Amino acid sequence: MSVFSPSPLSTFVEESQAIGVFDSGVGGLTAVRKLVNMLPNERVIYLGDTARVPYGNKTAATVSTYSQECVQFLLQRKVKLVIVACNTASALALESVQQISSVPVVGVIAPAAETALKQTRSGNIGIIGTRATVQSAAYQTKIKHLCASEGIEREVRVFAEACPLFVPFAEEGWHYHPATRLVAEEYLAPLKKAQIDTLILGCTHYPMLTDVIQDVLPNVQLINSGEEAVSVADAILHEMSIHAAQRGMNRIVECYVTDKSTAFMSVAERFLGFPLGIAEEVRLGK
Amino acid sequence: MSVFSPSPLSTFVEESQAIGVFDSGVGGLTAVRKLVNMLPNERVIYLGDTARVPYGNKTAATVSTYSQECVQFLLQRKVKLVIVACNTASALALESVQQISSVPVVGVIAPAAETALKQTRSGNIGIIGTRATVQSAAYQTKIKHLCASEGIEREVRVFAEACPLFVPFAEEGWHYHPATRLVAEEYLAPLKKAQIDTLILGCTHYPMLTDVIQDVLPNVQLINSGEEAVSVADAILHEMSIHAAQRGMNRIVECYVTDKSTAFMSVAERFLGFPLGIAEEVRLGK
Repeated sequence: MSVFSPSPLSTFVEESQAIGVFDSGVGGLTAVRKLVNMLPNERVIYLGDTARVPYGNKTAATVSTYSQECVQFLLQRKVKLVIVACNTASALALESVQQISSVPVVGVIAPAAETALKQTRSGNIGIIGTRATVQSAAYQTKIKHLCASEGIEREVRVFAEACPLFVPFAEEGWHYHPATRLVAEEYLAPLKKAQIDTLILGCTHYPMLTDVIQDVLPNVQLINSGEEAVSVADAILHEMSIHAAQRGMNRIVECYVTDKSTAFMSVAERFLGFPLGIAEEVRLGK
Repeated sequence: MSVFSPSPLSTFVEESQAIGVFDSGVGGLTAVRKLVNMLPNERVIYLGDTARVPYGNKTAATVSTYSQECVQFLLQRKVKLVIVACNTASALALESVQQISSVPVVGVIAPAAETALKQTRSGNIGIIGTRATVQSAAYQTKIKHLCASEGIEREVRVFAEACPLFVPFAEEGWHYHPATRLVAEEYLAPLKKAQIDTLILGCTHYPMLTDVIQDVLPNVQLINSGEEAVSVADAILHEMSIHAAQRGMNRIVECYVTDKSTAFMSVAERFLGFPLGIAEEVRLGK
C-alpha cells in the first residue's frame, strides 16, 4: 500500500497499544468519530495542538516542527500507529514525521486521493481545503502520481478551491446558517462550473458542513479525508496483525490538548458526536 | 492617568526610541495605522505573534505567557512605550506584562472604556469582542470601576456580545459581503434591541468591518479601541517629555512576525492602509 512504508525505526508493537491521532485543533475529532465507529475495539489517544491552531496559514517549516512535536508526544505514549488527521500537516509535513516515527504514520492526502480516483466517472475531481493545503498542491500532485503509477489513461482534471471561512463556521456550530450557505455558494461556484462529480473534503473540519456543501453541489460524491485515512489505518493494522481483536474500551478517547479553552469541550463533543470524558492540557515544544 | 502607573523598573528613555506595538496577529496594524497618522514623527516597531494567533480562544495562563514573551521582545529592541494592541491580551494579561516592563505599557481596555463613558448619552453601552474578551468581563469591570471612581451617578448599562466570526471575515477581506452582513445582523441584534448608543469595537480586527457594523447600527457611535489606546500613549509620551518632536521616519514600520505566511503581507497591508516594507520572522519563547 503506497501510503505505508515500513520504517527502519520499527519497534515491537502489540495490539493492545492505542492508535494515536493528532490535528492542529478539534477538526481531527471528526476522524476519531469514524475511527470509534469503524474500529470499536481500538483504544484512541487524541492530541489537539489547540495552543497553536490553526496550521492552515502557517509556513511549511513551522508546520513540520509542530507536527514532529505532536508525533513525539504520541510515540511517548506508546501508540502502535499514528493518523495525521490534519490536511495541512499531511500536505506539508508527512515525510518529516514519518522520518522520526518508529510506527506507521498515515496521512489523509493519499487515502482520499486514491478513493477519489476510484469513484470519479467524469474524471473531474474537486478539492477543498485550507489555503495552505491548496497552495501545497499535495492532493493535485498525489492524484497525478497515482494516475502515472497505476497506468490510468483517461483524462483526470483536478480543481482546487481554498475555503478558509469554513473552519470558523464549523467551529462556531453555524453548520447550516443562511450566511454559511452564502459562503458555500461563493466558494463552490467554480467547482460547480467545472462540473466535478467527486469532491474531496480536504480539511477535517469540513465534514461538519456536509449538508450545506451537498446542497450546493447536489450530484457530487463527497469524500471525507479523515474517514479514508481510518480505512487505510485499519488495513495496515490487519496487515501487521496488530489490530485489537478483543472488545476494548469503546467510546473512551484519551484526549490531550495544548490549550484547554472553555469553548474546547463543547466544540469537541459536537465534532466527536459523543461525550469526551476528560481532556488533559499538555505542553509541547519545550 | 489611571491607565499608566510608573513602573519601579523604569529606566532612562529617549524620544528617538520607538513605540512598540504587539498583537496576536495582524489586527494590531489597525492601531498602527492610527498611530502613524496621529503621531507621524514616531518610529514604530510592530510584533505580530502570527505563529500562535489567535489568542481569543486560549486560556488566561497561555495568553499571559505569550504576552510576556512579546513584551520582552519589544523591550530588547529598546522601545520607550508598549501598546498592547490586542483586546484579549489587554483583558487577560495587562498586569502581568506591566510587572515585567521597564517602560509604560498601554492596553486597549481602559482607554476605550473611558471614551465610551464620556460619549454615551443614554448610558447604554455595547461591547463586541472575542469570546475570551467578553468572558473576561474586562470592559464591564473597567466601566464599573470608572463609574465608582469618577462618581458617575446616572445609570450605566453594559451589553456585551462575542462576535468570533468577525475576525476571519476581516482577515479574508470580506468587509462587506452579503454573508458578512447576515453575520453582523445576527451578532448585533441583541445590542440593537438593548438600544445602545455607543459601541466599543473591542477587537483590533473590527475596525475593518466598520461600514457593515455602522449600517446594522446606524445611530450608534463606534469606538475604536486601538485608536483610543494611541491617544493615551500620546498623552503619556508628552507627560514624560519623550515624544518625538522632530520629523522622523513616517510610514516606516519595523515589523516582526513569529510566522511569515504567504497571506500575511497582503492582509497586513490592507489593515495598515499602506505598504509594509519588510516583515522579519522571529522566534519567541525558546
